[in-house]
Formats: sequence, structure tokens, C-alpha cells
Amino acid sequence: MSEPATVLVTGSAGMIGQKLIRRLALDGQVGGRIIGRLVAHDIIALSDLPSADFPIVVKTGDFAAVRTAADLVAERADIIFHLAGVVSGEAEADFDKGYRVNLDGTRQLFDAIRQASPGYHPRLVFASSMAVFGGPFPDIVPDDFHVTPLSSYGTQKMIGEALLADYTRKGFLNGVGIRLPTICVRPGKPNRAASGFFSSIIREPLDGKPATIPVSRKTVHTHASPRAAVDFLVHAAGLDGALIGPRRNLTMPGVAVSVNEQIEALERVAGGHVVQLIRDEPDEAVAAIVNTWPSRFSASRARELGFRAEPDFDTIIRVHLDDRA
Amino acid sequence: MSEPATVLVTGSAGMIGQKLIRRLALDGQVGGRIIGRLVAHDIIALSDLPSADFPIVVKTGDFAAVRTAADLVAERADIIFHLAGVVSGEAEADFDKGYRVNLDGTRQLFDAIRQASPGYHPRLVFASSMAVFGGPFPDIVPDDFHVTPLSSYGTQKMIGEALLADYTRKGFLNGVGIRLPTICVRPGKPNRAASGFFSSIIREPLDGKPATIPVSRKTVHTHASPRAAVDFLVHAAGLDGALIGPRRNLTMPGVAVSVNEQIEALERVAGGHVVQLIRDEPDEAVAAIVNTWPSRFSASRARELGFRAEPDFDTIIRVHLDDRA
Repeated sequence: MSEPATVLVTGSAGMIGQKLIRRLALDGQVGGRIIGRLVAHDIIALSDLPSADFPIVVKTGDFAAVRTAADLVAERADIIFHLAGVVSGEAEADFDKGYRVNLDGTRQLFDAIRQASPGYHPRLVFASSMAVFGGPFPDIVPDDFHVTPLSSYGTQKMIGEALLADYTRKGFLNGVGIRLPTICVRPGKPNRAASGFFSSIIREPLDGKPATIPVSRKTVHTHASPRAAVDFLVHAAGLDGALIGPRRNLTMPGVAVSVNEQIEALERVAGGHVVQLIRDEPDEAVAAIVNTWPSRFSASRARELGFRAEPDFDTIIRVHLDDRA
Repeated sequence: MSEPATVLVTGSAGMIGQKLIRRLALDGQVGGRIIGRLVAHDIIALSDLPSADFPIVVKTGDFAAVRTAADLVAERADIIFHLAGVVSGEAEADFDKGYRVNLDGTRQLFDAIRQASPGYHPRLVFASSMAVFGGPFPDIVPDDFHVTPLSSYGTQKMIGEALLADYTRKGFLNGVGIRLPTICVRPGKPNRAASGFFSSIIREPLDGKPATIPVSRKTVHTHASPRAAVDFLVHAAGLDGALIGPRRNLTMPGVAVSVNEQIEALERVAGGHVVQLIRDEPDEAVAAIVNTWPSRFSASRARELGFRAEPDFDTIIRVHLDDRA
């Protein structure tokens, strides 16, 4: 192993950011290097820092503010996990804010890194999203499917990917973009996102609470656990750039199941009494949104590069029970 | 027909811009509307204005300057042809300039239009490029092939396309992006662009001058004449947005021929004595670049939407002779 690495995490107070930091604290290393120091940035301060063998420096502020990028790049992190961003619903509701944070903020970060090169060439792992894709879709979305987002969030992620690839090609940074599938089971309370029910129908019954299915039980969707998402980020941090080649943005694997298969898995894992808490309550508005989403991805390149999702939905449920414990 | 339309052309002093303005002057109408006024913007003034039944206002300045977009949008053009941009080689050599003009300039134009909405909703035709694609390629590049550019120019065009689609989806403008194939026969002198020989081997012998082929004669490439490119722009101006749907960026058709087929066409059109002026002079550097380019495109959507390229390369040569006359 070479000298200890400095790691920067933007968006560190988000669900994935917090889980990533706990994982890094546990491992003490990432990308084949001992972690010497971790800088965690978000607009709100991380409240619940894990204990670690390395110092964790918490920085707080607006990611898209003029001075933030230069301030973060001054840390000279060897590995940057760029998770910061305005989420899908907010980016759609507040056009200016979405573009300011997701596009301008990302570009400012990349440009601050560029200003520091040559001599600085960090691995940058960018959390992208399946929202870069827009329907209609084939049954299985191939790796070479075009990106035609149908949301401002997806557009901003697509532009982040494009910048990442170009800045990498020009030698300014060493980027990998990973398109995350729907994260399931999301911890916390039910939310109003159209995708929320995919998690609620598992999480709520396991907590002894009722849950409803707003779509057809035949609806197929691709999921990865929060733990798998963190695995993807950590794996991306250590990937050999030469193996990736110029196409730096990778569609991550996941578990493609129907809602019915989700429920069958829940019954196998937790028993029939849990499943009885679920009932159908069709919601045409939600179904209309969900039916525009892709069902399955080939994710061949990511699999070849060693990214691994859970083998089945039973495992996704067990990961949730384990994380919840 | 409705009331006379105002037309704005950015990049109006470029080869395509000038040909477009001559065409509009000749037609006196575009997109089903009589032209009442045309505003031509470029960093250099148009020297050779055609006579027209409508006034042509020439504006000169840096497209990416802070005030330019608002100044141009104040013209309240009904139809905007956005051709302005730093070309491929310059965007690659001058990273800052390429992003400033091709990305920031385009975004400023779109944002100025957005500031003027609701109440203003122009048709905006964006000249994009096949450079949004990056190899390796299948034999025929389908319409749903991913965009993974291998140049800063291609990246900037891809981002322009993404913004155009999102701003259109949000109702801020009514955009159509058209990905132009290689324009052949380019008028003017031989240039040092790697694609230059595709035009030089036709244009120079027709002028009684020698020309060299730096690549294998089996190399297949897709071409459209300058006249076809102008036809695409004009056709895009009048397209019903509802027919296009949310995928606003269209790969244009062209004539896919090998270098050998180009030369056979030249012999048919101009005779064997002209073809004798061409000789092979392999240039590995040029061949290495050209071999990373796509050969053929399906362009199915564009054809369905009524975009028409020349039927064969003979016609492309005849168009050149006609335009040259």
C-alpha cells in the first residue's frame, strides 16, 4: 500500500453518504489505500459521526457557492466521492436550484480540480442515476442505449456524466460515473416520491405497519440495497481507469423483480402474517409515472468490471433487516 | 399564413449560415410563414448580404458575451437558427473557449429565452453534430445509440442537445436539434481538418488541381451537401413539435459511400481525366483519426419526419458544381 489517502465525500449527510462514511470508517481503507483523513461536506452537518482510525473533518455549506469547490479541492483528496445534489423532485420543482447545484456545482468542482492539475489527478466517483434514461424502453436496456432524460434531474446528471468523461479524457481528473438503480429498502418514513412504495411495501410490514401497492403487481423494476450502492462506490474508487476506457459512465447492476416477486420474497423471509399487511390500492397517477420507467438493465460492462448487486430480492430484504438491527 | 416572422441566425457568417441566409432570402418564407425580418449575428460581420424582400439586420459581437443573449432575444424572433459555435479543432485546442462559447453561450441563449417566457416560445433549431457519438460503433449506428463523445466539441454539442430537450420539455422553447453528417463538398481551400480530404478529393480535381487520399479507399463515411444541410435546417424550422415528441435531437440522413465510390461518382460526373488528378498518399495519423469515426447511420426517425439527403454521391457532386457556378 502507498501512503495514506485523503478522501472527500460531498453530499455526506445524505442516506448513501452516511452509509458510505460508516463503511469507510469500518474498512479503514479504500481503493487499495489506507485512509489517512476524510473530509465530509454537506449543506447540513453530519450529526452522527462513526468512530474511525482516521480523522473525519466535517465541512458545512452550500455546495454550489462560489468558493466551495476551491475550498474542497484545497484538501487535495486522492479519492472524491461526489454525491452532492438536489434530488429529483426538487430539481423538477425548482429549475434554477437544480441547475445551480447539480450542473454548476459539479462543473465548479471539476474546474477547481482542473485548475489544480497537472500535479493533481484524483479518482472522482460520481453518483449518477438511471434518470439519465427516458422511455420508451426495450425490455432490457442495453449499455449502449441512448440517454434521453425526461426530467431536469436526469438532464443534470447526464451533463455531469458528459463533463466527467471529457475532463477524464483531457487528463484533468480520473472519473467514474455510476448510474444507481432504485435504492431498496430505503430506511426512514414513507415519502411521496413515486418510487417510495417499492420500499414501503417491505419496510412498513416488517415494522408491523400496513402498506399499499399503487401499481400492478406485474410491474417489474430494478433494485439495489443501500449496502450494494455503497459497494458500487467503494468498488469504483479502486477500479483501474485503463480497464474502464473512455466510456466512463456505467449502468450499475441490480435485482429486477416484479412487485409480486418482492412480496413473495417478503413472505419467504418474514412470513405470511407480514405480507397480510399489504393491500392493493391502485393510484393511476403513480402508475402513470412508474410505467414510464425502465424495468431491466443488462449492466454487462459494470458486471464485467466487478460491480456486484444482490443475487435476489430475498437478500435485499435480509440486508435491510441487518442494517436496521 | 400567419403574420410575418422574425428569424434569428447565430453563426451567420459561417459557411452554412451564409448559405442558409441566401436560401431564406430566395424563399421569402420559412416554417410556413412569410419572413418579415432577419437578424444575422456572428463575431464577424456578414460581408456578402443577399438581396431579399425583407430587411436583414446584421449584428456583430462575441456570442458568449454576457449581454449578447438578452440582446438577441430582445428581437423576439419566431424562429431561431442557432449555428454559432467554436469548431471542433479549436474547441479541442482551447478548452476554456470551447466551453465558454459552445456550452455557456448556448445556455445563456436558452436562459434568455426562458426569462422571456411565458408569452415567448420560439422554434429553435440547433445545429448539432455526429461528434456527439464516440466509437466503437456498430456497422450502422441506430437512432437509439448512446452518445459518448470523444472530443470536447462533441461533449459541448451533447450538452447543448440535453439542455435543448429539457428546456423544450419545460415549455421554455420549442427546440429541434439536428446532428449534421460531414458536409461534402465543402467549398473553399483545403484545410487541415482530418475530414478535409473527403471534400478535397472532389473539389480540387474539379478545379484541375491534384488531391491525395490519406486513408484506405474502402473507408466508408456519411456525407451531406451544404445544400442538404440547409434543407435540414429549413425543414426543422417547420416541423410540428408534437410529431417529434420528447426526443428532440435527430440524427440526419446522408449518403454513406466508400472513398472508392466517391471517386467512381466523380468519374461518372466529370470524366476519367479529372479522376487521374487523385493519388493515394497514406497518412497514418489521419487514418487513425478517421478510423474512429462512424460509417453509416440509420437516421430512421429523421427520414420518417421528412428530412431528405441526396439520393447518391453523384448528386452531391452535381450540387457542388451547381453551387460553384
